[in-house]
Amino acid sequence: MPEKKDFDVSVVALAGGVGGARLAHGLVNLLHPDQLSIVVNTGDDFEHLGLTICPDLDTVAYTLAGLANPGTGWGIEGDTFSCLEAIRRLGGSTWFRLGDRDLATHIVRTNLLRQGRRLTEVTHTLTTQLGIRHALLPMCDTPLSTMVLTDQGEMDFQTYFVREAFQPVVKGFRWEGIEEAKPTQEVMAAINSASLVILCPSNPFVSIDPILNLPGVRQALAKCTVVAVSPILGGKVVKGPAAKMFQELGVEASAANVARHYRGLLSGFVLDEIDTDLIEQVQQSGIAARAMPSLMPRIQERVKVARRVLEFGLELQAERKA
Amino acid sequence: MPEKKDFDVSVVALAGGVGGARLAHGLVNLLHPDQLSIVVNTGDDFEHLGLTICPDLDTVAYTLAGLANPGTGWGIEGDTFSCLEAIRRLGGSTWFRLGDRDLATHIVRTNLLRQGRRLTEVTHTLTTQLGIRHALLPMCDTPLSTMVLTDQGEMDFQTYFVREAFQPVVKGFRWEGIEEAKPTQEVMAAINSASLVILCPSNPFVSIDPILNLPGVRQALAKCTVVAVSPILGGKVVKGPAAKMFQELGVEASAANVARHYRGLLSGFVLDEIDTDLIEQVQQSGIAARAMPSLMPRIQERVKVARRVLEFGLELQAERKA
Repeated sequence: MPEKKDFDVSVVALAGGVGGARLAHGLVNLLHPDQLSIVVNTGDDFEHLGLTICPDLDTVAYTLAGLANPGTGWGIEGDTFSCLEAIRRLGGSTWFRLGDRDLATHIVRTNLLRQGRRLTEVTHTLTTQLGIRHALLPMCDTPLSTMVLTDQGEMDFQTYFVREAFQPVVKGFRWEGIEEAKPTQEVMAAINSASLVILCPSNPFVSIDPILNLPGVRQALAKCTVVAVSPILGGKVVKGPAAKMFQELGVEASAANVARHYRGLLSGFVLDEIDTDLIEQVQQSGIAARAMPSLMPRIQERVKVARRVLEFGLELQAERKA
Repeated sequence: MPEKKDFDVSVVALAGGVGGARLAHGLVNLLHPDQLSIVVNTGDDFEHLGLTICPDLDTVAYTLAGLANPGTGWGIEGDTFSCLEAIRRLGGSTWFRLGDRDLATHIVRTNLLRQGRRLTEVTHTLTTQLGIRHALLPMCDTPLSTMVLTDQGEMDFQTYFVREAFQPVVKGFRWEGIEEAKPTQEVMAAINSASLVILCPSNPFVSIDPILNLPGVRQALAKCTVVAVSPILGGKVVKGPAAKMFQELGVEASAANVARHYRGLLSGFVLDEIDTDLIEQVQQSGIAARAMPSLMPRIQERVKVARRVLEFGLELQAERKA
């Protein structure tokens, strides 16, 4: 927790799961809670066994609280699965791996939601209890489900991602509930008071786009310096289906194509040092580019990457003003 | 599981928690599933952390499945409490001790109920998965809550029993929802096809009375031979507040007063050998009485007591016909 402000800037980070959580973890170590809000994708949220499960919110919260399981990218390190084994014995569904401690989050959240509290309020309660001082903001309070259109039909994201192990070939996406969905007032207030917005190294299609597609978000971002960090390094991802999705949608999986995906929105783009040769391609799209080591397995790398991304953003901001 | 019928009789057992579960455990070892239904009190059921919890149904099911924790009288032997610890960390309520494996029952049940299935159907699903072949029938499918009137105000049963450790002084009872409550069709069919009804050694006030008070139950029992087994031995109970409740309601806690409590309903009454001197008192109320060792910590004693209770019931039935 930085007591004095290392950076004089107000930041919003848009994040999905593991990659987003890791960069957010770096950012919370450099920015005061007044300076940083983390807006998290809720398109992956789903009801399972009657419980409301928010995988991206939980991955970010567990990572910031130092509870995340680094091996899996989901759940709590050292968690046990006694309840899930008993659910199996009772004939319940077990393809979604719910650990005993992880379950507590879903039980408490579902109970608070049923009492009529908004997901934003519930998330505040849970993260505060976990000792997190920075705001984790679900992108919206009402359900907005990412549906994946595949060669095996349409399925919700967790079914595609977990049950089907992202093996079906992706043909596109649909957002169930997008007509009624709107960003929360907390999200809009955070963006409106931010000067720098960071698109974390999360899946562009299913983590960042759901946030960007909410009515009013792109317009509000126009006044900010927006910097994206590539989730694709050397044509591959650290975790998840982003590279596979690019290929199946007929686009080469490369950091340069991530930058193109966000074209019109970005001031700057961060790619991994392994992709230094792509800087020129990105610049040709009218986006400033910077290469740096961007793998963030441990807190040291997370803080280092966060610091360099913030510095890059502030430089771009200064140029913009000049 | 008896392959041939040891007893040629059709039986309904009315049961609450531990004592009822133990006698039921003996009965299932002597009677074929066609011959025995166990009707279980649901007056203790409550919503906790958004989960529907049915303590008596679970105690009976866990006991019959060989999973019960003999030390506590609730929950599953060897269960762990990782989820509950995590719930505590999240600021959730922890006075009701939910084990990780026990939780699976509540999660699966709550989910099936929310899908619109009746508690009777859900209980059938859960008990079948646990390998139980005899019918466990919740007394009703709709909520009927036992409210305890105490010197500290009115409270639901689990609050009185668990959170307040049954320390408040009991002044009476009220059944919330009794106006709309009715026994299920399965319960009425079981009673109507039974010739012998056993009131298990459960709390008369809060385990057996809620079943008896359902509209039509007492009338249906009139054609049966009804035998009760005393939950009070030597003025004390094995577990729970029955003896304390008798005293606080101004009645001496004794097996004879349990028999009087059920007066008009009983053909026979079983008391523990320690209370042999009370046989005459019971008989003076017009009820046949028999003393026997009635503690049932292990399966051997459970089967022995069940056998002697069945024999006693069949004798009374024969006398009735003669």
